[in-house]
Amino acid sequence: MFNRLDHIAIAVRNTEDALKFYRDTLRLPLLYSEVLDGPGVRLTHLDMGNVELQLVEPLSESHPISKFLDERGEGLHHLCWQTKDEIGAAMEGLSEYGLSPKPNEPHAAPNNGSATFIEPSQTRGVLWEITSKPTE
Amino acid sequence: MFNRLDHIAIAVRNTEDALKFYRDTLRLPLLYSEVLDGPGVRLTHLDMGNVELQLVEPLSESHPISKFLDERGEGLHHLCWQTKDEIGAAMEGLSEYGLSPKPNEPHAAPNNGSATFIEPSQTRGVLWEITSKPTE
Repeated sequence: MFNRLDHIAIAVRNTEDALKFYRDTLRLPLLYSEVLDGPGVRLTHLDMGNVELQLVEPLSESHPISKFLDERGEGLHHLCWQTKDEIGAAMEGLSEYGLSPKPNEPHAAPNNGSATFIEPSQTRGVLWEITSKPTE
Repeated sequence: MFNRLDHIAIAVRNTEDALKFYRDTLRLPLLYSEVLDGPGVRLTHLDMGNVELQLVEPLSESHPISKFLDERGEGLHHLCWQTKDEIGAAMEGLSEYGLSPKPNEPHAAPNNGSATFIEPSQTRGVLWEITSKPTE
């Protein structure tokens, strides 16, 4: 399950401001930008060549990323693995590694995808996500 | 310059302990582990498929990573780009992007390499490193 990184996520306060640095200064190609209504975030992906960068902008003060931004400011937030399994199978497969997803239900990911988190308490301080990219 | 990520660095207190998770639980292949005497760190690289993971263990209390660990605990520390340019040319090339390396002299990287940092104050909260991997 852990053999391809999908993206590195960076928490940002405002996507348009952040793009002035990531797209305009670093000249990273913009792949897409999508609002997920459920969790209330804007997710914007840029191409770093061998892996993608995800800008995560919370759209409400009550979103956990807003708390992160208040406490730490903009910066590295989580890492996301890519799996070819369906998300349900991937979540079950975590038990082989002694890990468990939290919460128990998958959450929405860009392009109608699904994903799940593994909390930092299980992973030595890093929030990991797993996103399902089934082959068509 | 910004078209291939070399590694994602995670600060750890003790490499052997950390490997119990990254190598043994996640089953990431261990590539190498090297002590750099000058800066006084152990750097350990694991293979995540499309990009490498670097565990950074400070070997003294006065190392900046020790302060990071005291303040935040283990977790995501920096991202490192890979360039084919010699490090001096890469450092000069940053000015094209309106960025400047700090400090002005490159630092040692694994495998007799060289690298430089761009401070988070220039990069919206993320510490970026650039490492030189000239083609042979």
